[in-house]
Amino acid sequence: MDAATLDPQTLIPFFAPRGVALIGASANPRKLGHAIWRNLTQSGYAGPVYPVNPRYQTLGGMPCYADVSTVPDPVDLAVIILPAPHTPAAVEACGQRGLKAAVIISGGFKEVGPEGAALEAECVALARRYGLRLMGPNGIGTVDLTTGLNTTFLRGLPEPGRIAFVSQSGAVCGGVVDYARGQQLGFSHLVSLGNEADVTETDLLAYLADAPQAGVIAAYVEAIADGRRFMQVARQITPAKPIVLLKAGQTEAGDRAVSSHTGSLAGAHAAYSAACAQSGVIEAGTVGQLLDIARGLTCPVLPAGSRVAIVTNAGGPAVLAADSLARSGLSLPELVAETQAALRGKLVPSAQVFNPVDMLGGAEPADYAFAVQTALTDQAVEAVVAIHVPQALVKPAAVAAALAEVADGAAKPLLVCLMGDDSMVEARRLLHQQRVPVYTFPEVVGPVLQAMNRYRAWRESAPEGLPALRVDTAAAAALLPAQAGPLAEAAARPVLAAYGLPLIPAEVARTPAAAAQAAARLGFPVALKIVSPDIIHKSEAGGITLNLSDAAAVEAAFRQLRQAAAAAQPQARLTGALVQPMAPPGPEIIIGLRRDPQFGPLLMVGLGGIYVELLTDVAFRVAPVSRTEARAMLAETRAGRLLAGLRGQPAADREAVVDALLRLGQLALDFPQIAEVEINPLRVLPQGQGALALDARIILE
Amino acid sequence: MDAATLDPQTLIPFFAPRGVALIGASANPRKLGHAIWRNLTQSGYAGPVYPVNPRYQTLGGMPCYADVSTVPDPVDLAVIILPAPHTPAAVEACGQRGLKAAVIISGGFKEVGPEGAALEAECVALARRYGLRLMGPNGIGTVDLTTGLNTTFLRGLPEPGRIAFVSQSGAVCGGVVDYARGQQLGFSHLVSLGNEADVTETDLLAYLADAPQAGVIAAYVEAIADGRRFMQVARQITPAKPIVLLKAGQTEAGDRAVSSHTGSLAGAHAAYSAACAQSGVIEAGTVGQLLDIARGLTCPVLPAGSRVAIVTNAGGPAVLAADSLARSGLSLPELVAETQAALRGKLVPSAQVFNPVDMLGGAEPADYAFAVQTALTDQAVEAVVAIHVPQALVKPAAVAAALAEVADGAAKPLLVCLMGDDSMVEARRLLHQQRVPVYTFPEVVGPVLQAMNRYRAWRESAPEGLPALRVDTAAAAALLPAQAGPLAEAAARPVLAAYGLPLIPAEVARTPAAAAQAAARLGFPVALKIVSPDIIHKSEAGGITLNLSDAAAVEAAFRQLRQAAAAAQPQARLTGALVQPMAPPGPEIIIGLRRDPQFGPLLMVGLGGIYVELLTDVAFRVAPVSRTEARAMLAETRAGRLLAGLRGQPAADREAVVDALLRLGQLALDFPQIAEVEINPLRVLPQGQGALALDARIILE
Repeated sequence: MDAATLDPQTLIPFFAPRGVALIGASANPRKLGHAIWRNLTQSGYAGPVYPVNPRYQTLGGMPCYADVSTVPDPVDLAVIILPAPHTPAAVEACGQRGLKAAVIISGGFKEVGPEGAALEAECVALARRYGLRLMGPNGIGTVDLTTGLNTTFLRGLPEPGRIAFVSQSGAVCGGVVDYARGQQLGFSHLVSLGNEADVTETDLLAYLADAPQAGVIAAYVEAIADGRRFMQVARQITPAKPIVLLKAGQTEAGDRAVSSHTGSLAGAHAAYSAACAQSGVIEAGTVGQLLDIARGLTCPVLPAGSRVAIVTNAGGPAVLAADSLARSGLSLPELVAETQAALRGKLVPSAQVFNPVDMLGGAEPADYAFAVQTALTDQAVEAVVAIHVPQALVKPAAVAAALAEVADGAAKPLLVCLMGDDSMVEARRLLHQQRVPVYTFPEVVGPVLQAMNRYRAWRESAPEGLPALRVDTAAAAALLPAQAGPLAEAAARPVLAAYGLPLIPAEVARTPAAAAQAAARLGFPVALKIVSPDIIHKSEAGGITLNLSDAAAVEAAFRQLRQAAAAAQPQARLTGALVQPMAPPGPEIIIGLRRDPQFGPLLMVGLGGIYVELLTDVAFRVAPVSRTEARAMLAETRAGRLLAGLRGQPAADREAVVDALLRLGQLALDFPQIAEVEINPLRVLPQGQGALALDARIILE
Repeated sequence: MDAATLDPQTLIPFFAPRGVALIGASANPRKLGHAIWRNLTQSGYAGPVYPVNPRYQTLGGMPCYADVSTVPDPVDLAVIILPAPHTPAAVEACGQRGLKAAVIISGGFKEVGPEGAALEAECVALARRYGLRLMGPNGIGTVDLTTGLNTTFLRGLPEPGRIAFVSQSGAVCGGVVDYARGQQLGFSHLVSLGNEADVTETDLLAYLADAPQAGVIAAYVEAIADGRRFMQVARQITPAKPIVLLKAGQTEAGDRAVSSHTGSLAGAHAAYSAACAQSGVIEAGTVGQLLDIARGLTCPVLPAGSRVAIVTNAGGPAVLAADSLARSGLSLPELVAETQAALRGKLVPSAQVFNPVDMLGGAEPADYAFAVQTALTDQAVEAVVAIHVPQALVKPAAVAAALAEVADGAAKPLLVCLMGDDSMVEARRLLHQQRVPVYTFPEVVGPVLQAMNRYRAWRESAPEGLPALRVDTAAAAALLPAQAGPLAEAAARPVLAAYGLPLIPAEVARTPAAAAQAAARLGFPVALKIVSPDIIHKSEAGGITLNLSDAAAVEAAFRQLRQAAAAAQPQARLTGALVQPMAPPGPEIIIGLRRDPQFGPLLMVGLGGIYVELLTDVAFRVAPVSRTEARAMLAETRAGRLLAGLRGQPAADREAVVDALLRLGQLALDFPQIAEVEINPLRVLPQGQGALALDARIILE
């Protein structure tokens, strides 16, 4: 990909072209070429639209062009809806005519097999030759709600608003639009990327970063081809504009479903989550959550912290909101005395004024305005959730108007829950237009405020450079064999040592007597482990003996190990035994890395020993990480809590773990042939005393 | 509560009265007494409705009665909307007039404080005297969509259907109704229970069990007063009719919000979850999920297992559905070869026929009918999810009609996802009316099918008696002191021994020499633990020494323990030391019980040692439990997986844990004064070798 294709300016013609040609325009209402024609001409786009189809002289009362070469100026964009085999010629014609961009709606390309993939590659090659950007194929096009350009065949559009929606699935895009219309959800852009033959999701992010109408970017993604570029671009955008992302195929089954449908290799979900966390991208778990969080982020202010007040006209929904907030790590502080007094002074006597503030069923719009305004000024409160349940005698739209007025210019966010559907349409529209996030059920507010709060924390976090580590790259390079395969502990240790990873001392001994001598040097008691390039799982081969307290025991154990290993793996080459002193006691964790096809090296930390399998207590990050990121990944695991010291136990040396993670990350960056490293267990000593890798292996690819 | 108040027949007048008096009827459109009058007379109820208000001669052209005593026959039910202080007199008048039931809509009772509580108690006492059942106060009444009786002031009603909705919050009921109208969700009954002065949620369950129109009971609950009766009633209902329950106040914050709003003591959520699991009640986490699952259970058939096929016109939503299914423990089997061949024979060539079956965007209603029918007959498939995303050229209502026809009479459930809102109204209504569960977003199907599948398993599970255990109740009774407080290990052990709990052998020694002699009898190495009625946390008081291998070490340790304990707790009475042999190695778990205010004794099992705090790996059940339930509770924890044997480790004696749980449950039932028991750790030995309680304590109340 050359520099020109990375320039977000090249995407302008997809949204604000000076003119549009529809190649494959149709007068037949049962054809997509007709529906697109309708949308191009009837959605408010002010520029000229030219139908192209050799079968018509005119279309909709306009001259129809036989070929794009005859279309007059100005024209920047083509929308192509032709059978796949005819598409490359159309792309070439667009290039020759000097167009800047083409949206290919047609399917029949990579998604249907090798023949389609060849056609798609041909289109891309032609587009590159002429400097034409391509969107699709196999997408449903684009809508710019500001310029009115609509290249889709969708029936009906949502209201204009501040959410830019980018989707790798045209169907999800269409479904979201249909849903959004019933929810009064407003959008600035709708983009369906199809097969991403040229323009990718990351290109779109870069473009939308500079689009003023797009206040929030919401993306539905099935696979990201260039994970590291995605992270780089996202990191540039998120300090100023939030990105919410739903990755489909989060489970193995979902992943398989993706593969069968787009043919692209979806990365493991852990890598996506790590990449999002490291680039300030907010991850959503479902379509509902994607839209809920995007709606929340249309709010002009973010919460300064996690303390929330609830103002309601009904107790039950407030309980549900409180549950939701607590589950998402937010708290419900008691309001300060002055706030309570102020509320008590104006609300009905039986109202609750602690938190939730329950104004009871008779609450009028003025009560909402007063109570929310009062709660917003409480110093213990960083966000307010107002809940309105339909009442016979109160108009929701009037409540909404009162709330929108209070929210306008407020320094803290107000979220509103209107529990209902039928009677809430007008109120919902009004609040959303005024950038007050509005929801149906109270259970939604927790995840939304959590996302808003985390995003605020991300924006506040200072950028941090990567740590300088003293490592011996040359030594490691000399130690790494050329061929792929596993390096067992004895072979892996020197490589890890060259990168300063903390290893338990050890010597390789070739005879029982040498082992006993080594044990004496290292200090009893010792452990003995079989050394063989062919044995990776030593304990399963009977290749480990612990707690040997004298020379005789070491010699006997040496012989026994060889016998056991020979019995377990008769073909294994046995080159000796590793002698290690028994480590001081301490909690055990696992650290490691594996290489992800989309994002590159992925660092891992979690509880060690048998708990690796019993729990799924593991955090991941894409390497390299800063010291703060390494601390954060440890802190989000139970291993981190264990090391912090449970029940008054002394804290273990967490900084030694952080340092080890940084060194592993550096190793992975310096040697792309390292596919996997696992240090398990890493015994962590008391604070200030470091850590010791008691076992380790490396896999080369 | 006497037998009459437990008779569900007494609730019939709330839903099908022969006549209704509205006490507090009003001609003023700004009064609730007007809105209720409108609903009573305009919702289709066929019986007579009598307005009662001394201020009017007539109301709405009908004679208005000054007092309920003058209302003519037939009349069974009164709806009372008067200020709280006037309500007891009205209740008494209803009783004297011979009415059977009264719905008190008015607030101002228990929920506002002691004065209101006194008024409420007065109403209940009067109602009991006259054999009148009361619903409320502080609720919004009832709707029976079959008889047309509507005692609420709600504007508008949902469509008639098969879901009975019972709510302890009037606001949640009102919000759900408003929402349901926009979603074409159909109900048989709507009941708002208010303060439950007389009629409780459990009474309603018993009534709805016999109501043929109620196919599914959905309940929103803030607190259940009589947990054990709830379980008993639910167990009778769920084999024939599903109950879905949302308990508000699932978190501590939510719980506090409940307390401040109803004044009732909400039980810990673990007890609710256990009670639901043990009575076949399906628990929902949110309002959305409550309605989604209830919708699912309107389906006439349940899945026979967890294998699901997806049929779709778009790949992206199928991936989201696959993710949702996998997260909920369901699987996506590959369709059998015949099915694939059949699909390939009729669908477009580029369609995917494995699973998901992706028919691509052009799929017509006939394609849906064919593909879903074909998938339903596949022997590898136990349920089908059909997804339809709006397309320019296909009518959703036609797809819905085709799907409803296929679902009609099918032996396996079909769930449908119509991704959109605006264009899906007609299709959604049609499917719901035909008892085909229908949803907006694909992410919903996993939790719904999981709930349907679990409910099917519950219905299939054979009822199992409680095990007969040999326990020495008299001995335990003699050992338990009369006063409340903790029993430390030495005092707790004999009680537990009387109930056959497996204890590590031990002797109490009062002197160093006696300790050494005991150690010799028990066998070295031993552990020594301080014995003091005042020391519960022995290790924190320095009161435990492990691995003492000879008499001298035991004597020295005895002295040291006493010193350390005296230093840590100078006031503690030190009566000696407990001498125990060191136990054989094995995994450690925790078992225990605590008494829940609503549900009684709650058994607990989970990972032991430091992992109790580090993980929240604990399962609960309400005692008594059957052997199968005890096995199930162990199996749902990671402790269960650990005991099953990780990485080829031998399995531990899980039946010994099950037996210990049963014995703990029996102990709790026999001695209500036992508030808590904790056995931590319980060392579990290899299969067939039992388990050993290494430490234990009891708390008496």
